[in-house]
Amino acid sequence: MNPVGNGKGDESLIIVMAKDATPEDVRQVVERLEDAGAEAHISQGRLRTVIGAVGNRETIQQLPWEAFPGVERAVPVLKPFKFVSRDFQPEDSIIDVSGVLLGGGHFVAIAGPCAVESREQLFAAAEAVAKAGAKILRGDAFKPRTSPYSFQGLGEKGLELLAEAREEFGLPFIAEVVDPRDVDLVSQYADLIRVGTRNMANFTLLAELGKQPKPVMLKRGFTATVEEWLNAAEYVYKEGNHEVVLCERGIRTFETATRNTLDISAVPVIKGLSHLPVIVDPSHSGGRRQLVAPLARSAVAAGADGFMIDVHPAPETALVDGPQAILPTEFADLMHEVRALALVMGVEM
Amino acid sequence: MNPVGNGKGDESLIIVMAKDATPEDVRQVVERLEDAGAEAHISQGRLRTVIGAVGNRETIQQLPWEAFPGVERAVPVLKPFKFVSRDFQPEDSIIDVSGVLLGGGHFVAIAGPCAVESREQLFAAAEAVAKAGAKILRGDAFKPRTSPYSFQGLGEKGLELLAEAREEFGLPFIAEVVDPRDVDLVSQYADLIRVGTRNMANFTLLAELGKQPKPVMLKRGFTATVEEWLNAAEYVYKEGNHEVVLCERGIRTFETATRNTLDISAVPVIKGLSHLPVIVDPSHSGGRRQLVAPLARSAVAAGADGFMIDVHPAPETALVDGPQAILPTEFADLMHEVRALALVMGVEM
Amino acid sequence: MNPVGNGKGDESLIIVMAKDATPEDVRQVVERLEDAGAEAHISQGRLRTVIGAVGNRETIQQLPWEAFPGVERAVPVLKPFKFVSRDFQPEDSIIDVSGVLLGGGHFVAIAGPCAVESREQLFAAAEAVAKAGAKILRGDAFKPRTSPYSFQGLGEKGLELLAEAREEFGLPFIAEVVDPRDVDLVSQYADLIRVGTRNMANFTLLAELGKQPKPVMLKRGFTATVEEWLNAAEYVYKEGNHEVVLCERGIRTFETATRNTLDISAVPVIKGLSHLPVIVDPSHSGGRRQLVAPLARSAVAAGADGFMIDVHPAPETALVDGPQAILPTEFADLMHEVRALALVMGVEM
Amino acid sequence: MNPVGNGKGDESLIIVMAKDATPEDVRQVVERLEDAGAEAHISQGRLRTVIGAVGNRETIQQLPWEAFPGVERAVPVLKPFKFVSRDFQPEDSIIDVSGVLLGGGHFVAIAGPCAVESREQLFAAAEAVAKAGAKILRGDAFKPRTSPYSFQGLGEKGLELLAEAREEFGLPFIAEVVDPRDVDLVSQYADLIRVGTRNMANFTLLAELGKQPKPVMLKRGFTATVEEWLNAAEYVYKEGNHEVVLCERGIRTFETATRNTLDISAVPVIKGLSHLPVIVDPSHSGGRRQLVAPLARSAVAAGADGFMIDVHPAPETALVDGPQAILPTEFADLMHEVRALALVMGVEM
Repeated sequence: MNPVGNGKGDESLIIVMAKDATPEDVRQVVERLEDAGAEAHISQGRLRTVIGAVGNRETIQQLPWEAFPGVERAVPVLKPFKFVSRDFQPEDSIIDVSGVLLGGGHFVAIAGPCAVESREQLFAAAEAVAKAGAKILRGDAFKPRTSPYSFQGLGEKGLELLAEAREEFGLPFIAEVVDPRDVDLVSQYADLIRVGTRNMANFTLLAELGKQPKPVMLKRGFTATVEEWLNAAEYVYKEGNHEVVLCERGIRTFETATRNTLDISAVPVIKGLSHLPVIVDPSHSGGRRQLVAPLARSAVAAGADGFMIDVHPAPETALVDGPQAILPTEFADLMHEVRALALVMGVEM
Repeated sequence: MNPVGNGKGDESLIIVMAKDATPEDVRQVVERLEDAGAEAHISQGRLRTVIGAVGNRETIQQLPWEAFPGVERAVPVLKPFKFVSRDFQPEDSIIDVSGVLLGGGHFVAIAGPCAVESREQLFAAAEAVAKAGAKILRGDAFKPRTSPYSFQGLGEKGLELLAEAREEFGLPFIAEVVDPRDVDLVSQYADLIRVGTRNMANFTLLAELGKQPKPVMLKRGFTATVEEWLNAAEYVYKEGNHEVVLCERGIRTFETATRNTLDISAVPVIKGLSHLPVIVDPSHSGGRRQLVAPLARSAVAAGADGFMIDVHPAPETALVDGPQAILPTEFADLMHEVRALALVMGVEM
Repeated sequence: MNPVGNGKGDESLIIVMAKDATPEDVRQVVERLEDAGAEAHISQGRLRTVIGAVGNRETIQQLPWEAFPGVERAVPVLKPFKFVSRDFQPEDSIIDVSGVLLGGGHFVAIAGPCAVESREQLFAAAEAVAKAGAKILRGDAFKPRTSPYSFQGLGEKGLELLAEAREEFGLPFIAEVVDPRDVDLVSQYADLIRVGTRNMANFTLLAELGKQPKPVMLKRGFTATVEEWLNAAEYVYKEGNHEVVLCERGIRTFETATRNTLDISAVPVIKGLSHLPVIVDPSHSGGRRQLVAPLARSAVAAGADGFMIDVHPAPETALVDGPQAILPTEFADLMHEVRALALVMGVEM
Repeated sequence: MNPVGNGKGDESLIIVMAKDATPEDVRQVVERLEDAGAEAHISQGRLRTVIGAVGNRETIQQLPWEAFPGVERAVPVLKPFKFVSRDFQPEDSIIDVSGVLLGGGHFVAIAGPCAVESREQLFAAAEAVAKAGAKILRGDAFKPRTSPYSFQGLGEKGLELLAEAREEFGLPFIAEVVDPRDVDLVSQYADLIRVGTRNMANFTLLAELGKQPKPVMLKRGFTATVEEWLNAAEYVYKEGNHEVVLCERGIRTFETATRNTLDISAVPVIKGLSHLPVIVDPSHSGGRRQLVAPLARSAVAAGADGFMIDVHPAPETALVDGPQAILPTEFADLMHEVRALALVMGVEM
């Protein structure tokens, strides 16, 4: 826990350093900001460093930043979320998940069982989804559950099985982490680390994920506004991890015909506000098998960068969320339709 | 107001009369039901009569209905909505709007200004949407507004202008009614009569609409569950008007980035529960021009039977809901994309 | 339907005429407003006339209104609701329901059955609630129901029974109206006319109620914001009926442990924004008998001007909303507690 | 993370051991359960051990538990939450916060600043609330904030100041923890540890709190149902910490006139379902100073066991949530009213 910040987050500037900027260049900028009474938030990414400056707007914006050595440009940002806003970066971010590109015209299907239950179950699902055209395998080893008496996942053994399946079927995998103390463990295994809906505002978990090298998928809190969601993404980004994917998975409303209400509008809303890719989870939003295909198709048409679908070889025996898992054959049929829609939408998959 | 009903709506049977059944055949069935202590709700449609029987299940289901003269079949229905459920009619309803078919594989684009403001405004919009491929014109003469000080519509003069536009551009039109005492007036002019979101549960208005001959579009109350919405459709249907189209237009949630949250899942949910066609209103749900095209596309992909879009030749001067209206050129671009998606989905438009 | 209004509702002035102003005085003010390009909305109340002026703020506010004959004062109002705002009238409104005062320190208990079912049921309830200290009897003759197959009320016969009970037990009564065409009928019988939650935005019904002489209770739409609710009250008030009582009855949320979520905060929020009295309905919000007493007590402590409670002599046989009705003995116990709380709160009852 | 549980949480039995039961007695019960194919969850409280058995209902309920040495009674529980349900313990829990009793007729006022900002601010507030009759001091050292750029608290220095204020004014204090890795630190200082609304479903944090000795206050997630909230309390309880207080703090709804909607009905609903005490936070629910007193009074009248109020000596300078803090003098006035209401309600304070 880092007890800083002064609440004046609305007045700020982002200083983007050049790719070849030296630590000394960065130090100079930070010093100058602090002389001007501003706070500097350094976000050290893989390719470049960016510095978020929070302070008196007039003072910090009038300084000749682009004349400083190593500074590429300075961008004023009015939104409470800074680094993840389109003001800061107009072009779409493209995330590289162990070689699979996601975002900026690259549509990715992620599929697999909700929870890893056994080698047989996982491998059957992985083989089927790979064959049907999924590019990333899903499967969880740690499950946060409403009741303490529900199945909570296989733990590290589940991660080992996922790593085996990756070898066998050539698919990178995504897995959830629920405890900041497990981040290192999951980061060693997974290609893409997921923050679940209940942990979207678990800021200590987000900060840990910002400090490790694997890309992060941030599911929307089922009761979070789009602005709160982007603020949560900012927690990861500002710690230096710029590889963040958003996932819309339905929000809590009064309607009881579905588990949650898929907020399909969030896809174009996010595209307007942020450069981060956004995918859709039609399985957890609808909560019913019959809704998966129509919602997945609507995600493609709305402009999402991918979807994530629960596929289980035998949904009726699933330990977690069986009613929403589709069969491998249903997934294959859906992928057929989706490829046609992707053509119309002009995206690669 | 018809003070009947006994609250035992859950136990019921629908008796479908043959197309050539005589009034005497109907009378016999009703008499037999009443002898058995049940209530009979007669719904006299254009093509045939159906009788909803509410009473003791065992008593009424064991009678040999299909042996009665003029009876085609008897269908037990467990849902609180009877006539509009798929249990009652497995095949999709197709609604005929002055020659334009809607539902059952017929996708219809409805477009035009939110409110009729003047002949110039209406005709400019009508010409543009007709050219781009819309099949029904929208435009309202009566507007229910949150504040009594907001523009409330042109009244009958608006309906006359709509009728003129129909002649000029060959498009049937849809218009809203807000008062049961205006039903006859609107019914004389409009091809399709709309019940707005605020009136979905105005049961006296619904009953009046059930007694007139024009098809009815029932918008979802922005805080109604799918089940309440289907119950409202039942109010129209049971009075004898079987030409009902549903329109999803967003529900009220905590999210403030959009005017309402489009519940895209409602489309496949309705398809499972009811035989009525369902369309989507991307203008009033999103409330913002930039969201119209992505939401309209997602409606096609989710399996909707059409959409209704606000198109205004000069949105910045609109008296009602300007921020969500798109330009005629934007509508034409959207229709181009939509035709490609409709091909993938296998629907005619 | 009166197709007027120009949407510029935010810029306005209310001109309060003196009690002894003449029609000629009113005419002069209206003429002057129209000369200045503004619209005049005349609200002719029992005691005095008030004129709402909507137009260019600078033009209309600089005129020397208080020098006009018959003008008492001119009040600028920024809220979209004008007449019902505290800006317009700083002191609390006190409503006179056939001699029972409600509001401004007068706390009123309203009780009786949800629907009138029979003379026996109504009289048993009326006798009990009168004895326990209720000042107004409730009981409905017209019930809007989600399903068309549910009990819809006894109609005029119910109103006759209520009038008989009024004679017998000395309690004025409140009853609901659901159709603008029934307003005259209900107005002939009832002392206080209720608009139910589903009809809060039925603007044609509201306008009719604004033109008849009986006080009106406007229940909050279960999905209406406080601002929308006050706008609805404005529809009644501006037609000339200034006797409006608000009733909070719970809003629709994700919580399923209660029928609706009682928004107790609405009581102090309304007190800040409006001069109208506000009461609470703990029966329809909670939807469960065990919640009635705690919620009724919390209403008193939050500063409400009364409550309305379903009391049924035999809740298990009730045709409508039985699970939320309390027994006469439970009501008597509650009234005992409530009198002690009212003493602490310094209100009369 | 403990990957156990089999999802069969609905069929279960709780076995309450006598106060003088030996470890051997416990071992025997557990062994017998495991022989019968059931899982045993041991919850080792300060006073006694209870064992939750999850398994085949018929098998485990027919065993003669009360004949086993050290077993006091066996209670079947149908709810998904077991230990915290009233089925399990019919009498109210009373929590001892360093000598201050809370629950079971003991009403406690908790007050102080939202965040600790400085010694001056904290001591001024503490002195005032102690004088006015508060029994527990609030003040946070760690603040989870929506934006990473907002003030996040003073950290351990804040806890030290709170401990000093405890010495000076004789009030035990409550403070929030947001990271499972900080539980030990906060537990060393605070008398009562709070889980904030954003962390209600942070199950790893809850489990840590279940393993330390200080009582825990669990705020309701602003989008959690009552059932989810009780399940979260179960996570703490089942790890052995039986000292849990619930705090209702408003839920997210469509209404924007308040920060959140205080769900006052949750108080009597919880009283029906659980033996745990429940208090109300009128500051964070309403989000506005003018609402604090009416909501606090309504909490007393609804039967809450206490409230927690933000009091700040200079709200306009507060770093966190200033708009909802009341002045010390306002708090003193409120406490005067509250004492009178508590007398009517028959609770001690």
